[in-house]
Amino acid sequence: MQIFKPLKTIGSIFEKHEAMLKEATAAVQKREHYTPFPEMPSPQEYGETAEADQKKQFESQMGGKFERLKQDSDSWLASDEESPYTGKPLGISYPVYTDIDSYIKASEKASQDWKHTDPKTRAGILIESLQRLKTHFFEIAHATMHTTGQAFMMSFQASGPHAADRALEAIALGYQELTRFPDHISWEKPAGKFSLKLEKFGTNVGRGLGLSIGCATFPTWNSMPGLYASLIAGNAVIVKPHPKAIYPMAIVVGVIQEVLSENGFSPNLVMLAVDTTEKQITKKLAEHSSVRIIDFTGGSEFGRYVEELPGKIVFTEKAGINSVIIDSVDDLEAMAKNIAFSVSLYSGQMCTAPQNIYVPESGIKLKEGHASLADVENAIVNATKGLVEHPKAGHAVAGAIQSKATIERVKKASGLGGKILLESKPIANPEFPDATTQSPVIIEVERNKRDIIKGEMFGPIVFIIPTKDSAESLELASGNAREHGAISCSAYTQDPELMEKIAMQMAETGTPVSFNLTGNIYVNQNSGFSDFHVTGGNPSGNASFTNAEFVVKRFVRIQSRVFVP
Amino acid sequence: MQIFKPLKTIGSIFEKHEAMLKEATAAVQKREHYTPFPEMPSPQEYGETAEADQKKQFESQMGGKFERLKQDSDSWLASDEESPYTGKPLGISYPVYTDIDSYIKASEKASQDWKHTDPKTRAGILIESLQRLKTHFFEIAHATMHTTGQAFMMSFQASGPHAADRALEAIALGYQELTRFPDHISWEKPAGKFSLKLEKFGTNVGRGLGLSIGCATFPTWNSMPGLYASLIAGNAVIVKPHPKAIYPMAIVVGVIQEVLSENGFSPNLVMLAVDTTEKQITKKLAEHSSVRIIDFTGGSEFGRYVEELPGKIVFTEKAGINSVIIDSVDDLEAMAKNIAFSVSLYSGQMCTAPQNIYVPESGIKLKEGHASLADVENAIVNATKGLVEHPKAGHAVAGAIQSKATIERVKKASGLGGKILLESKPIANPEFPDATTQSPVIIEVERNKRDIIKGEMFGPIVFIIPTKDSAESLELASGNAREHGAISCSAYTQDPELMEKIAMQMAETGTPVSFNLTGNIYVNQNSGFSDFHVTGGNPSGNASFTNAEFVVKRFVRIQSRVFVP
Repeated sequence: MQIFKPLKTIGSIFEKHEAMLKEATAAVQKREHYTPFPEMPSPQEYGETAEADQKKQFESQMGGKFERLKQDSDSWLASDEESPYTGKPLGISYPVYTDIDSYIKASEKASQDWKHTDPKTRAGILIESLQRLKTHFFEIAHATMHTTGQAFMMSFQASGPHAADRALEAIALGYQELTRFPDHISWEKPAGKFSLKLEKFGTNVGRGLGLSIGCATFPTWNSMPGLYASLIAGNAVIVKPHPKAIYPMAIVVGVIQEVLSENGFSPNLVMLAVDTTEKQITKKLAEHSSVRIIDFTGGSEFGRYVEELPGKIVFTEKAGINSVIIDSVDDLEAMAKNIAFSVSLYSGQMCTAPQNIYVPESGIKLKEGHASLADVENAIVNATKGLVEHPKAGHAVAGAIQSKATIERVKKASGLGGKILLESKPIANPEFPDATTQSPVIIEVERNKRDIIKGEMFGPIVFIIPTKDSAESLELASGNAREHGAISCSAYTQDPELMEKIAMQMAETGTPVSFNLTGNIYVNQNSGFSDFHVTGGNPSGNASFTNAEFVVKRFVRIQSRVFVP
Repeated sequence: MQIFKPLKTIGSIFEKHEAMLKEATAAVQKREHYTPFPEMPSPQEYGETAEADQKKQFESQMGGKFERLKQDSDSWLASDEESPYTGKPLGISYPVYTDIDSYIKASEKASQDWKHTDPKTRAGILIESLQRLKTHFFEIAHATMHTTGQAFMMSFQASGPHAADRALEAIALGYQELTRFPDHISWEKPAGKFSLKLEKFGTNVGRGLGLSIGCATFPTWNSMPGLYASLIAGNAVIVKPHPKAIYPMAIVVGVIQEVLSENGFSPNLVMLAVDTTEKQITKKLAEHSSVRIIDFTGGSEFGRYVEELPGKIVFTEKAGINSVIIDSVDDLEAMAKNIAFSVSLYSGQMCTAPQNIYVPESGIKLKEGHASLADVENAIVNATKGLVEHPKAGHAVAGAIQSKATIERVKKASGLGGKILLESKPIANPEFPDATTQSPVIIEVERNKRDIIKGEMFGPIVFIIPTKDSAESLELASGNAREHGAISCSAYTQDPELMEKIAMQMAETGTPVSFNLTGNIYVNQNSGFSDFHVTGGNPSGNASFTNAEFVVKRFVRIQSRVFVP
């Protein structure tokens, strides 16, 4: 007997990807290093002609219709996207519905088959889509570069393999949770001479239509985890990318639609809903009664609006103030170089980029001797200057600035009244002479001017804040995290007791700390399968990639029972 | 190296209860029958003198101060509680704080140690409290009886062993989730000639102060799961019982406080916050910025208010319309008896009690022959009459009516204009001649009068609703579940295809179905460790006892990392 029969099961697609699912599930649990998708854009990994072929595909896409979506639509919309590298519009048009209800209706219809499919089939199809996406990583890299302003290497890694890692992580944890409890239990309760018997049958039901609201800086990395988590749980999803960064997610959605179609599912299960800055549709979608799940990455104000929508299940990543606490360090130079890289990487436009650096006024202890506040400041300033002025590394690390608002913010920051330690300047990029660039501005904020720092100031803006001592540094860092949120924290200390104190006090504000980073490993980086990205424990976001909460809220478990006489 | 050291660890208390935790964890996973706390109030299970001793304790508590709480307070408050069996006030006073902030401050202070304690120690202490509570199950039974109106057997089982089962289930699943990921990972990423190494350390941080808002009908069974789930996750909890049903939870809180004190923790970690109907403090507590987690059981209107409080993590069980779909049955008599018991048990005051019974106008198929609508109605009416008029079984099954509003509702229902098939009458109770009792009213609702049923009508009120066919029955039952919520559904059908259809369509409304129950097993009953109580998938509640979501939302995971040069 079985009262919950899946209407549709495709064994072969599960079997094809079973080994990868198993590996991923083990990795999620162990949280050791695991990279199923090679992070280097090398010909050995991706094929001799992949890079050239896909660059051509990217170039031929410029100025044309994006015809790879299989979803229903009633017209074409020219997007707002423009390249921070060339200053020119991409000129891409996407298929759209002119009214919101058409997206909702099409999604809901498409979800009928999917929700009655077993988790195995869903996992197989979703992993197949990631494997297929792998053959588009170079195109995604160019698409990301010319929408977000990321440099090529980051565009490739973040939007390609790392985003696929995060999606696979969500599939694996989702699959684990969906199959956590037995689907059939023979329940028997002793009751005197005889016993009471029930056959119990369990099933999972998706919470309903999902909406994925994307951001302009990490269009695939930030959107794919929630998208795949909703899908594995049995829900349809409408993908509403940022109007300035549509193309990367269009590729992802196109690939998923292709795999769905091939396997007999409606491609409308995942729909791309494109809008323009002038005429946004996000609120209409978010407030629609059929939308039950919302994944959001972006600014804090809109994030709060989403979080407070009644009756929705909401996952947010917003903004925060990331701190660096400098207490003592073996090698000042090595620390300064590491910090310089972290604040310059993608010009401070990462949600994990440090903003406020706390240094005791009396300076810090070194392995040998002591460094004054000025020594520390000089080291950071010089390392940053050296990096951004380096003819090759400068633009390759900093990329370009995604939005004009960020440029404005950098300019305003210089005029706030702090002591400018390093001016922000354009960064030369020989390949793209018209790129919008801006190196980090580094500002010392004296004690009596601390109120010039107003929450998060997104972009290449760095404050060095002299403090009485490391205890005050920690108070300020944790207070900011509690009040404004924080996604990362970096700390340098050679004192094991202080290390514990910082770790615990920041943990209580929901902030992970990276200690004593030097060399080629940076506070900005959060690894799929190992690091929890955002904890949900402070105002920077209410969710985490990927913990159990991120997946279990997307479905409910129902267990029915049949009496056996 | 270890950067997250628990400040306090008590190995012995964990070891004492490790075997039970292990058993419970396995049971949660398998969801087979498991009852760690014996459900029969027998001398063999609970000791020869337990019943008499605790009855004395109950009697001596009447009219006196409840002095077993170890929490801080500044005055005593005489409670509103009165016995539905005697109509008399219990006359108990409880220690209280006169202002809300004092509770908050005391709780927050008490949570400091607890939140820095490892999950093992917490699990040990919490299981110890359940074991200790076992020695109070008879007193809890009397306390429950004389506040809720439940009959003795239900009072004992629901408030004693079954509530403890549910609490243990929450501890077990919570412990499993808290220890799901490794606390220490040596992460190593190959990077050309050398590799990058980080030591990663994980910890869990409770979301913050919990508030448990109790109901008047199942004071411990409905409150203990959330209370223990919040505690295992590292949070302090303020317990705000229903003003009419304080005593049972006072015993629970007193026992937890005793065990906390013995183990060097502040008893204020769990505080009982008592109020009266006239001057309720629930909203003030719920809206307090320090309260982060709210568990609520009770009416739908207040439930929605709690769910919509911004920035809170809320778990609710509200009301719903539970349906019985009668399609075909082998033995009409056996079905009717089972339904009669279900609607009479605790006089329909269970959240799982059936309300709307759908029967095709053309009657139903029996194993041999056919029963008309009138046959089905007569069978249910006669079985109910026989049960409630039975001199011993009647009051032992129906108990008493908890609130005057329920009496009013029963009277109103009779006057709605449906066809009264069975009048509601008092039920004789020789032991308690003044008991407030009311047998179920059974009303046929003709097609053109269906609008007389307004959502849930809590209490011993049963509607029989003739339908075109079972397809219409299912439409009505699932429509009600979707719109008003449903916690249970009972269905009788001998058609396997229809069984699947009912199971799936009701599952899509977040409602579990019990099929073909006859004999001594009832739709009202949900077993700890096996049945998920409420699914969270319809308006009857947003949470479930006990799935992963019920525990993981109460803490966040933070993973920090240390660079190894």
